[in-house]
This record gives sequence, C-alpha cells and structure tokens, in this order.
Amino acid sequence: MSTVAFDSARVPFGSPAPGLDAGFEHWHRATRSRVRDELTEFLRRVRVDELRAAGVDEVLAQYAVGGKCLRSTFMYLGWLCVRDPDPVALRAAASLELLHAFALLQDDVMDDAVLRRGADAAHVRLSAWHQGRPEAAAGFGASAATLVGDMCLVWAEQMLRESGVGDHALSRLWPRYDAMRIELAVGQFADLANDARESPALTTVLDIARAKSGNYTVRRPLELGAALAGGTEPILGTLGHYGTLIGEAFQLRDDLLGIFGAAGRTGKTEDSDLGQRKATSVVVAALEMAESAVREELSSLLARPDLDVDAIARCRALIEISGAPGHIEAMIADRVADARLALRDSVLDDGPRLALEHMASLCTARNV
Amino acid sequence: MSTVAFDSARVPFGSPAPGLDAGFEHWHRATRSRVRDELTEFLRRVRVDELRAAGVDEVLAQYAVGGKCLRSTFMYLGWLCVRDPDPVALRAAASLELLHAFALLQDDVMDDAVLRRGADAAHVRLSAWHQGRPEAAAGFGASAATLVGDMCLVWAEQMLRESGVGDHALSRLWPRYDAMRIELAVGQFADLANDARESPALTTVLDIARAKSGNYTVRRPLELGAALAGGTEPILGTLGHYGTLIGEAFQLRDDLLGIFGAAGRTGKTEDSDLGQRKATSVVVAALEMAESAVREELSSLLARPDLDVDAIARCRALIEISGAPGHIEAMIADRVADARLALRDSVLDDGPRLALEHMASLCTARNV
Repeated sequence: MSTVAFDSARVPFGSPAPGLDAGFEHWHRATRSRVRDELTEFLRRVRVDELRAAGVDEVLAQYAVGGKCLRSTFMYLGWLCVRDPDPVALRAAASLELLHAFALLQDDVMDDAVLRRGADAAHVRLSAWHQGRPEAAAGFGASAATLVGDMCLVWAEQMLRESGVGDHALSRLWPRYDAMRIELAVGQFADLANDARESPALTTVLDIARAKSGNYTVRRPLELGAALAGGTEPILGTLGHYGTLIGEAFQLRDDLLGIFGAAGRTGKTEDSDLGQRKATSVVVAALEMAESAVREELSSLLARPDLDVDAIARCRALIEISGAPGHIEAMIADRVADARLALRDSVLDDGPRLALEHMASLCTARNV
Repeated sequence: MSTVAFDSARVPFGSPAPGLDAGFEHWHRATRSRVRDELTEFLRRVRVDELRAAGVDEVLAQYAVGGKCLRSTFMYLGWLCVRDPDPVALRAAASLELLHAFALLQDDVMDDAVLRRGADAAHVRLSAWHQGRPEAAAGFGASAATLVGDMCLVWAEQMLRESGVGDHALSRLWPRYDAMRIELAVGQFADLANDARESPALTTVLDIARAKSGNYTVRRPLELGAALAGGTEPILGTLGHYGTLIGEAFQLRDDLLGIFGAAGRTGKTEDSDLGQRKATSVVVAALEMAESAVREELSSLLARPDLDVDAIARCRALIEISGAPGHIEAMIADRVADARLALRDSVLDDGPRLALEHMASLCTARNV
C-alpha cells in the first residue's frame, strides 16, 4: 500500500492577509520558526527508539511541528502582553503544539479522516506500516495513532514543566491548563454526540464550537501566557474577551473552509465536513435560514446513508442558496470588529496590541 | 438496549491468600478503603455536569474506584519504605487509580472488550446511551470512552499535583512519572503490533509484558512512592528488583487467568485472550513446548478467522497438554521466591518488608 508522504514545504500556511505590516510578518515568521526549533529539539530528546521503524518520527513532524503554530503564538503573545520577550516563555508556549497534536491525532481517528496537512493521516500511515506484516490485526492503525496521541499529551505537559519558567509561574498555570484540557475533551464529547441530522440549534453548535476549538485555539492560550507572566485581571479580561470573539470567528471560518475550501488549501479531503454530516455552523445556519423547499432537499440529502460527489456538490449549492455563507461571513466580520474595539479600549501596550490585531486578521481571513 | 450495571459489591477482589496475617489484612483493607474515599472525593470535586446524563459518573466509579487498588497500594508502600504513614502521601498514591482507569478505558476500546469488572465495558455503555437517540453515529461509544480516558489521564496528574505533597517532593517524582506514562503507551503499542499468529519468542512477550503491565503495576508505583519520600538508592534498588520480579509474576498469573480463569472471578469474558489471539506468555510457551502434532493443531486453530466455544475449549486442552501452564506456574513461583530473597537481604524496615511479602502472595496467587 503506497502512502502519501508528509512534506513540510507543502503545508498551506496561507499568504499574509492584506494590511499586515512587514514588522509583524517578520516577527510572526521568526516566532513560528523558533517554536518549531524548540519542538524539534524536545522531540529529539524524548524520542522513543522502538517506535522509529513504525514511522512515528514522521507522524510527529507532521502533527506537532508541521502546523501553523497558532496556539503557541497566541500563548507567547499572552506573555508579551505582560512581560518582555523571553526564550523560556517561548519554549513553554511551544508545548501547546504537542497538546494540539494529541487533539488532532485523536480527532483524525474518531472522524476516520484520511488526510492531515495534505498527507496521509497518522492512523492511515500506521495501518499501512502494519499491513506490510502478515495477518495484521484490524484496527491497529487507529489504536497506534491514539497511543502516539497519548504520548503527545504527556510530552506537552512535560515540555511545559521542563521549559524553565519556574515553579512559581507554573503554579499559576496548572489550574488553567487542567481546565483547558478537560474543556477540550468535554467539547469533543459534545461534538460527537451532536449530529447534523438531528437539527441542533445554531446557538448549541456555537457553544460546542467555542468549547471544542475556539477557546482552546485563541482564548485559553492567551490566558495561559498572560497567567504564566503574572498578568493582572484587566489584562486577562481583555485577552479573554478578544480570545472568545476571535476563537469563534476562527471556528466559523474553519466551518466555511470545511465546506467550500479547496483541498490544496485546507490539507483535508474536500468532502470531509459534509461527508461526515458534521453539524457545523454553516450547515445549521443553512437549515435555519433556507426556504422550506431548499431546507427539505438539503435535509433529505444529509439523511442519505452515503453522499457521493454529486450529492455533496448539490448540498454546497443549496447551502449557497440559503444565504448561510453570507450570514456566517457577517458573523465573522462582527466578531473581528468587536475584538478590535476590545483591544483599543484596553490597557495593553501598543506592541502586543498591534500583533493581536494582525493575528485577528490572519486567523479569520478567507485564505487562512 | 439493556446494559449490565456495575455493582461494586460484585467486584472480585479475591479472598486472602493462605498465610496472610490479620494485621496485614486489616491494614490492606483500610488502605484500599481510604484510596477509594480519596478518589470519590476528588471525582466529586472535578465532576463535569454536562456528562452526567451519559452515565460518565458510573463509568468512573467502575473504572477508577472499583478496582483492587494494587497500584496505589504499591505506591503508598514505596512511601512507607522511607517515611511514616501520611494521609497526603496516600492521596498522591490514590491518583494512580485514575491513571489506571485511563489505561483500562483505552485498552477496552482497542481490544473491543465487552466486560470490565463484571459489568459492561465503558464503550458498550456509552454506545447504548447514544443509541437511544435517532441516527446515532457509528463508533460513538469507542470515541466517548477514549475521551473519558483522556480526562482520567489529566485528572490523575492533577490529583497527584494537588495532593499536598509539596513542590520539592513532586519535582523528584515527575521524571519518573513521565517515563512511566510513556513506557505504558510504548508497551501497549508493542503489544498491539504483536500477534500470536506470528509466533513471537517467549522472551519478546515477556519484554512487552514487563513494559506494558508488570512495570506499571508494581515496580514503577513502588519507585514513585519511594522517590516521593526521598528514598535512598539502596531502597530504590531493592524496590526496583522486587518490583520487576513481582510485576512479571503478576503478568504471568494474569495470562493464566486470561485463558483458564472463570469469568465470575476475572470480571471479563472467558474467551477474551484466546478469542483475540493475544500472544500471551501461556500461548507462546505452549507453542514453544508442545510436541509437533499438538503445536500444529494449536497453530491452525489460532489461525482461524473466528474461534467458537468448541475451538476455544480445544485450544485450552492443547495448551494443558503442552505443559505450558505448569511451566508458567513454576516461573511465577521462582519470581516470588527471588523477590522474597531480595526483601530479606535488603535495608527495609520490618513493617514495609512484611507488607511487601504479603503483597507478593496476594497479587500472584491463583485466586487473585
């Protein structure tokens, strides 16, 4: 069985959004590069030799090092809202990419996703390795990918604890860190229990998205960074407000890309969200907003046991007709505007405030 | 769908082995009871209200509180080899039951085990909850049980960190704790990649068993407790030696029970190890020791796509004929004897030394 190899040069990071200044671009590029160096160095140190033959090093490069480093960047920005740049804080922030790798590895198993970042998902890759051997046990790939995820969860915390930020700073962090990890699992649990065919309300879907993805991508990383640095309540309050808004906008953009994004850009298969009947904001808004004939056709398509390419194309067309994409675009724009206002009214210094404005554009733009 | 409810009174703890003294029995019973109280109190504190409807509280009672508390007892004994009894150390030790619950939840998903401790496994229970709803997503039970496992992994560490043992003591613990968690995942990975039909060698199987179960049941908990208490190298060395031997003996006993144990005693289905073609020590020893005709019949039975009740009974008979059960019994006895010698030659005080001798009997006896 041939597998699609992971090639970090092919990962879609998105080109800079219009209006990003060169200074921010330079800082952002340098930060991501240092995050990846820290992760590579940590993973080299903890490498498990017994697992190399199975291709686990490559899986870790793909899942932990090969991403856009949004969460680590936000955590480090949280720190920079309170204190000066510090390589130790950056190392602590980089650990969030390992937590994210854990979440992605498990998600891909649970969703049976075949692609991640334009290459085979970990369970596909590990299954292919095992199938070279006689009489392979069924389900090996899924179980093995889950176990690599477990290791990432343990390593995330180990990298954070060993980052050098000191026990006192860490003690401010742990309650938030634990709460975030539980929130992530509870959000994923609610997401799995939710299903597009049961017509959940848009507010329910947004609540789940906030817990599962929005909070953990923007708000919690910012709060972790600021708490690590001993930030005051006004700073934490501003970051919480901004983070909730941008986290939601990020998730809404992700939902649009999940249906209308090109595979070359998202690194996933084109039919993934519709094919899995995910009750995303876009689908739920379409069902709420559509005229009755459109709603009925869309509902009956989503109720089919299998969706072929034509059915998925028709679903996309019906969602367009419903007006949902425009409504979701407006919701994204509202949230970004409110987040900018929250920053302007805040106690933050100009440097981190401007970087947060740029990050708001970067992670909610159409070409993310 | 009706499910088998979990009833803690029905959990098979095993009656005391012959030769256990009343003082130890009393201490052991009181320790287990306090471990369960600590776990119950912690789980009450961290309870996730959104998950109660799905029956997650009951799953946690079954997986985290309903066991024999071997790992927490060994960790507390490790502490008692160095320091006086301390409720804070006992609370820290109790956290290992949450780590074990994580491992069991994932194992049951990966093995598709239907029973745990005489009641429905978590994924069966969670799947039944979800199937009451229309159009349930396939695989919900397995994913939901995995997520409850994730929470247990996070909570285990949180309970340990918040136990009150202090940062200095904890700093001695973390490197060992992280290494143990990685060792557990790597051991499970190796176990899954291993298959009875590929005729692994007995030494390979013992290596995997040591990493996956033996170390993490006896040796690592003892070392964690002693390290937490600031134990010296001679004490850690004795516990490491004893722990390796008794961990192996425990795993060998578990392998015998996995094939010859009554379901009423093991709390699992009777055919689980053979039905899954697990390459356990007993099966591998039988294949190594049997005359060629017996070996061929056993190999061809294990190669069948499905094993019915008659085929499993025949496998059992062939394993008996091979002489493997007696050989494994002798290996257990050797290890217990060597462990007792290691204790007698050691620097340990009489109290913990005697308790460790009793624990050696208790967790390797035929009626465990």
